[in-house]
Amino acid sequence: MKRLPAGFLPSVALDTGSDVPMYDQLSEWFRRAIIDGRLRPGQRVPSTRSLAKELDISRIPVLSAYEQLFAEGYLETFIGAGTCVARAIPDEVLKPANAAEYASPKHASQSAPRKVAQRVDGLRTPPQTWANNQGAFRVGLPAIDHFPITSWSKFINRHARRPPIEQMVYGDPMGHLPLREAIAEYLGTVRTVRCDASQILITTGSQQGLQICAHALVEPNDPVWMEDPGYPGVRQAFRTVGADIVPVPVDEEGLNVDEGIRRNSHARAVYISPSHQFPLGMTMSAARRLQLLNWAARTGAWIIEDDYDSEYRFGGRPLASLQGMDTDDRVIYVGTFSKVMFPALRVGYIVVPKDLVPAFAAVRDAFDTFSSTLYQAALADFIREGQFARHIRRMRMLYLERRTALLEAIDQYADNRLEVVGTHAGMQLAALLPPGVDDVALSIKVAKKGVSARPLSLCYAEPPKRGGVILGYSGANVHEIREGTRKLVACL
Amino acid sequence: MKRLPAGFLPSVALDTGSDVPMYDQLSEWFRRAIIDGRLRPGQRVPSTRSLAKELDISRIPVLSAYEQLFAEGYLETFIGAGTCVARAIPDEVLKPANAAEYASPKHASQSAPRKVAQRVDGLRTPPQTWANNQGAFRVGLPAIDHFPITSWSKFINRHARRPPIEQMVYGDPMGHLPLREAIAEYLGTVRTVRCDASQILITTGSQQGLQICAHALVEPNDPVWMEDPGYPGVRQAFRTVGADIVPVPVDEEGLNVDEGIRRNSHARAVYISPSHQFPLGMTMSAARRLQLLNWAARTGAWIIEDDYDSEYRFGGRPLASLQGMDTDDRVIYVGTFSKVMFPALRVGYIVVPKDLVPAFAAVRDAFDTFSSTLYQAALADFIREGQFARHIRRMRMLYLERRTALLEAIDQYADNRLEVVGTHAGMQLAALLPPGVDDVALSIKVAKKGVSARPLSLCYAEPPKRGGVILGYSGANVHEIREGTRKLVACL
Repeated sequence: MKRLPAGFLPSVALDTGSDVPMYDQLSEWFRRAIIDGRLRPGQRVPSTRSLAKELDISRIPVLSAYEQLFAEGYLETFIGAGTCVARAIPDEVLKPANAAEYASPKHASQSAPRKVAQRVDGLRTPPQTWANNQGAFRVGLPAIDHFPITSWSKFINRHARRPPIEQMVYGDPMGHLPLREAIAEYLGTVRTVRCDASQILITTGSQQGLQICAHALVEPNDPVWMEDPGYPGVRQAFRTVGADIVPVPVDEEGLNVDEGIRRNSHARAVYISPSHQFPLGMTMSAARRLQLLNWAARTGAWIIEDDYDSEYRFGGRPLASLQGMDTDDRVIYVGTFSKVMFPALRVGYIVVPKDLVPAFAAVRDAFDTFSSTLYQAALADFIREGQFARHIRRMRMLYLERRTALLEAIDQYADNRLEVVGTHAGMQLAALLPPGVDDVALSIKVAKKGVSARPLSLCYAEPPKRGGVILGYSGANVHEIREGTRKLVACL
Repeated sequence: MKRLPAGFLPSVALDTGSDVPMYDQLSEWFRRAIIDGRLRPGQRVPSTRSLAKELDISRIPVLSAYEQLFAEGYLETFIGAGTCVARAIPDEVLKPANAAEYASPKHASQSAPRKVAQRVDGLRTPPQTWANNQGAFRVGLPAIDHFPITSWSKFINRHARRPPIEQMVYGDPMGHLPLREAIAEYLGTVRTVRCDASQILITTGSQQGLQICAHALVEPNDPVWMEDPGYPGVRQAFRTVGADIVPVPVDEEGLNVDEGIRRNSHARAVYISPSHQFPLGMTMSAARRLQLLNWAARTGAWIIEDDYDSEYRFGGRPLASLQGMDTDDRVIYVGTFSKVMFPALRVGYIVVPKDLVPAFAAVRDAFDTFSSTLYQAALADFIREGQFARHIRRMRMLYLERRTALLEAIDQYADNRLEVVGTHAGMQLAALLPPGVDDVALSIKVAKKGVSARPLSLCYAEPPKRGGVILGYSGANVHEIREGTRKLVACL
């Protein structure tokens, strides 16, 4: 071990004007130098006193840096021999002397493969320029500017100001009990869902609800029926667990159960949106519902019922849920508050058959432990004190008005080139395009004019005969709807 | 089709005192009767007028119920023949006449298997009675009563009262940009993490961070190194994707890399907590860190660095992160705010190598779209305006005091029957029990006295020679710590 020549640290550009403290700059320099191989194990380093002198700085930051490097095991000291680079660092792990080149990103990418999991490819979504716009016709966007934010923020404030300790510590993976009770009561009254609070699992939204269902119920390579066309998030969820997705066509009565049985009679699970099919908007008929329940009871399949927006049914009350008709406890009911409240809330729920509750709770716990409590507590009060029901009623009127405006605008501008389907309920409708029109190209074109029109073909597993666009009308005012329709038709 | 005898609805127990509206009770009765087979397809039902008369109620609810049942496809009407049960409902899907028996839960469980996914078994945790208590010695619990809740609630209020529309609609799967910027700056300054905001992915906590890593990087049956003993949540995350977990022992220098290579030299990923190993508390030595980085760069393995509580290092500044030493972009750095702020916040983050950002964003999007925005916006301000750093400083002093109290209490009460390990940092320490003492039995016993002591053996994949308990001291005051220690020792 030879003493380093004085001035062995010329490459340390100590930046006295930097926010990074001097001791940090120094210890970082040492680490780099050791990793890069500029300082070798056993090599002696200057004393704090001489290094401070060398660098013309106070000795205090040098002492701090050395102390840190001792704690981290980069430096060691032994009696009579001063301080040196820890000899425990094996030579072979260090970079060769031409470290700069070795450390370059180009080299890094050549050194070993950078493999991500295969499932990731199935989860990527194409660039969605049509999702960059709000207003007309962003799908799933409620009327944010009509949300009673002042009233809501009072509920937030009530729980944020002096939360009881239980609302700040680790919570139940199933969710905050008062909210679960409020949801069970609401679903029983309004949606004919038969459940009690013990079956309600609070999620961070319906996408997490679908993931929990997939992880709790489906093995890799299990066949799973999915509506075709259907909600792309469902494909993501089932691909995450490596399921074999079996697209089953829908017709005016909803999912074609006979065709599902023909394609795969022993699917492990089936996903449906029976109240208001996404994206085509039909309601599943009673006959099909009973046929599906019967098939599931016979084969042991699970039915995942997604009821993402059925609060908004026009001309009649919300339809009865499939879950409420199920006498064999085969239905898992997935819901969300994103569409009724606002998307950034991230609160949804699953209604779980009683005997499956422990399995679902275990999956939720493994996923992300539990949901943040503040919004759950505020929402429980918002529901119980009647604000939620009032907001739904107001929005139902508003969305009916907006739907009417959209239908009128299509009638006025489209000259029969848009064929509307699925208008009885919800927050969006689908409009079929003239044969031969590429809906993705159209959506990209329209997006450039500030109008969001989601292409229908991306909801299909099997390419559809006719393209179309999904037009959300809930988040746009009548003026935006008229202007949006005009621009959309102009791009046709 | 014969006309039903008058009074065919005797079993409808219309409850006039119920909260459930009359039309709901009626339509629900019809649905049940059709599903149960008491009413058959094509069977005629009374007119609304005669049914109202029969039941001695107003005609209005009967009209509403029928309207609903028409919409749902249970009833149909045809000219000249009145109303009947929809003939489209195929006979074979309905329950046989002895429907009551068929629909019983007992029968249901016999009708078809009720299989959940195999992975669920690996995710279940044993009953943890020791997690029912707060205070001494709940692991991972910060000093909630010292959290600056009044100041924090002002930040909440600032963003809850009049949020810009962007904070209410769908957000970026990577997270709220101002928070990502604040975190990147914080990590760069305090934790020597080298990143910019584009690499920060906001999560709902470190458990979700681990799940996203597992799903983005690991295929089923891929070998993954895990510290033994280690954090049980990590096992849950890797079991979720069906990984083959390879337990790698830790010693006083942290993960034994040589032993890992011996057990499986081509692991796809490795999980480590190098700053403050969970649960034993040692710091990974520089030699081991370099050896691990070198092995990963050579083999293409990913390193998941969990830095769950390194804000709290006593006697010295926080240690440099492994991520900051990595010249091959192999380290994914996982962190959380649950330990510094409060657990119910549910905000954590991942620092993702730049080329992996699209893959991680796709997984997060598929998982649950994005994190709720309110807390993200409030936390960004809380960090930027210096409250966060101030809180950490205050807690570091407080936890040092509590740690000292715990060490003194153990010294005073335990009579050398508890051997303390890992006390340089963090919010908990591990105490080994005398040989032969069953730590799970002890934890259950102590829990009954209101004291939480998490058994060490449950953190092991391979049964340890000696049991122990993990004692969290951050969430308990000095009095609770002394009392807790006394009760713990009394149960020995």
